[in-house]
Amino acid sequence: MKYTPPPAAAGRFNTAWAELAALGRDGRRGGYSRHVFDDADMQMREWFSAQATRRGLDVELDRNGNLWAWWGTPGPGAVVTGSHFDSVPGGGAFDGPLGIVSSLLAIDEMRVRGIVPAKPVALVCFAEEEGGRFGLPCLGSRLMTGAAEAEHVRRLHDPDGVSFADAARRIGFDITHLGRDADRLANIGAFVELHVEQGRLLHAADPTAAIGVGSQIVAHGRWRITVTGEGNHAGTTKPDDRHDPMIPAAAAILAARRSLALHDGAVATIGRLQPIPGGTNVIASSVDAWMDVRHGGAAETAALVDEIVAAVREEAELEGCSVVVHRESLSDAVMFDATLTMDLALQLDAPVIPTGAGHDAGILAAHVPSTMLFVRNPTGISHAPGEHAETSDCLLGVDALADVLAELVR
Amino acid sequence: MKYTPPPAAAGRFNTAWAELAALGRDGRRGGYSRHVFDDADMQMREWFSAQATRRGLDVELDRNGNLWAWWGTPGPGAVVTGSHFDSVPGGGAFDGPLGIVSSLLAIDEMRVRGIVPAKPVALVCFAEEEGGRFGLPCLGSRLMTGAAEAEHVRRLHDPDGVSFADAARRIGFDITHLGRDADRLANIGAFVELHVEQGRLLHAADPTAAIGVGSQIVAHGRWRITVTGEGNHAGTTKPDDRHDPMIPAAAAILAARRSLALHDGAVATIGRLQPIPGGTNVIASSVDAWMDVRHGGAAETAALVDEIVAAVREEAELEGCSVVVHRESLSDAVMFDATLTMDLALQLDAPVIPTGAGHDAGILAAHVPSTMLFVRNPTGISHAPGEHAETSDCLLGVDALADVLAELVR
Repeated sequence: MKYTPPPAAAGRFNTAWAELAALGRDGRRGGYSRHVFDDADMQMREWFSAQATRRGLDVELDRNGNLWAWWGTPGPGAVVTGSHFDSVPGGGAFDGPLGIVSSLLAIDEMRVRGIVPAKPVALVCFAEEEGGRFGLPCLGSRLMTGAAEAEHVRRLHDPDGVSFADAARRIGFDITHLGRDADRLANIGAFVELHVEQGRLLHAADPTAAIGVGSQIVAHGRWRITVTGEGNHAGTTKPDDRHDPMIPAAAAILAARRSLALHDGAVATIGRLQPIPGGTNVIASSVDAWMDVRHGGAAETAALVDEIVAAVREEAELEGCSVVVHRESLSDAVMFDATLTMDLALQLDAPVIPTGAGHDAGILAAHVPSTMLFVRNPTGISHAPGEHAETSDCLLGVDALADVLAELVR
Repeated sequence: MKYTPPPAAAGRFNTAWAELAALGRDGRRGGYSRHVFDDADMQMREWFSAQATRRGLDVELDRNGNLWAWWGTPGPGAVVTGSHFDSVPGGGAFDGPLGIVSSLLAIDEMRVRGIVPAKPVALVCFAEEEGGRFGLPCLGSRLMTGAAEAEHVRRLHDPDGVSFADAARRIGFDITHLGRDADRLANIGAFVELHVEQGRLLHAADPTAAIGVGSQIVAHGRWRITVTGEGNHAGTTKPDDRHDPMIPAAAAILAARRSLALHDGAVATIGRLQPIPGGTNVIASSVDAWMDVRHGGAAETAALVDEIVAAVREEAELEGCSVVVHRESLSDAVMFDATLTMDLALQLDAPVIPTGAGHDAGILAAHVPSTMLFVRNPTGISHAPGEHAETSDCLLGVDALADVLAELVR
């Protein structure tokens, strides 16, 4: 990892980064809010298409809204890299876009090195990886692999009540052929996703390492807990007449936190909560709380959710409220391709680390040899405006990606 | 209370009600969301202006955005009635509009009775009574009486970041002369606001009574509690690295509820809460929680808030979060004019009841003889789509209002 990038690569990185930095800023929350098919997403897609076209790549929108750029003729054994443009609400600049920018610069680097690929190379921008708009993370890769049903996705709604079908229609995207894309999947020989690390496991493994290789994604899922009570006047409703759904919702927040102490390695978080109607002088009639849970395998994760929900139901009964729990997603632990992971780790002399975050690479891993490269995150902060990676580390990431692609396209 | 309304009055009531029923529906929350200067508010103002004009009343927008209609020449000793059009988010149909519709129909009824007022009569629609858009309840009446500073109101922002000044500008309302309207206030001889009851104190006082007269408004206020932690990834942030502001926010919800059991007659409610950024897979960086508290006098109310906030601060310290509390409003208990109240109660043979809800009549009471008429609410539900009053009771309300206006204009 002693690579010193040529000034040209640093310049291209800084330019690309500055261009994207202007898109999708969230003035209210800070950071970025970029969601599938919104203005920021469309601008970033345009930016990517222009960058790819300038490099002589063939740009193509697939049937599920994922954007591809091909170096060489699409066909079997393709070596694919890429990530996603979308962010969580008020997210950081790196989660997603770093992998896409790096994929473009890795192509440049391979060309500088005079590499002529013996296999097709593709860059991909997956749609809605964060689930920030329609609530289904890895929406684009799930559709492509058949892990999500087209009919289900068409009917998903964003917080403003706009369906996926309508959102697609508004930007002129034809959803007639939404769904499993078997031919495209069959053409992928390997998938490598570069991503900013979202924690500090790399630092724990090797404080000097700027790049890590992914071993697995731990099981994770998200649940929507809806507590229904009785809307009423905050000033005139006596204690005994109250059926306030915020009380069991508060119990949910605290039960989720308690579970971290009870189960080693588990995390459970409520970071999104919506009282309805949400007026200051109104007892809410219902509350939606979204819970993110990650713990070992899928069965352990689901069991942990049951434990938390039991505490919520107990409080709801006392308050005269009802509780409905809807599982929005549950992904079992995903092991990345062991051979590919080990090859990359040896080639790069990089530590192998797991991740608690979900990724499109985790969806693809069930179908094609997949793994990930992680770029060092000095604070570990992610999904927040403070998310950061040093430019020097990002350039090491580009170089590492070029290294592994060059090996894979032989 | 054996009055049987003439069919004509019932027809006019039903028509007016049906016309307003279409305006400002909230498809997402249910019920109505009508906020000052929004489309629904503007449509309701147009409706009122047309209704008043049809009755030969002179319509006038005052310097603070309150809409007036005069029967007779504006001048000293005016007898004023009215209420507000705006609702809480997802509120009921009656809170506010019932008083305005009743004021128009009471004029009709007085004319049917051949009454020729010896004093000017005015109907008024106050702006932003609920504080649903700019967070300051009774904004219009507070401005008129000088209880709110024009400069402060100009700079208030709605949840979308639009200032009051900009919102006014967008609908073409000139805010140059915003603020205390001494001449207008000096002309008011008496103010009577008719309102749907927002609880069941009337039922407790007399199960057969359809109409009550208001004695007082208990002290109430609203506070915004901002808890700041550290935004981070929900999946990859270890328990010890978490500074999750949702934990102290949950403590606030539960502490508010506990206070009801500890202080007889007190209510404290958190019905609006906003995690920022509010993503499912994100530990929030901060949370705003709005708390509505009502308890005896202003000093007791503030002391109760301190008690709740102390519990929040304790939890925040454990979590490594900070807490900032902002008082958005605090109104001391308001006694309505005792003579006026007693006169009306005797005249109508109606029970006298207090209310835990704030009203423009409470703001005016500090300056002019004011009181309220309450129309029976069978379930007590208010600030929610289920808010209801029987049409027969509403017509008794119109008749009662005509009775008291007829007496006051002699």
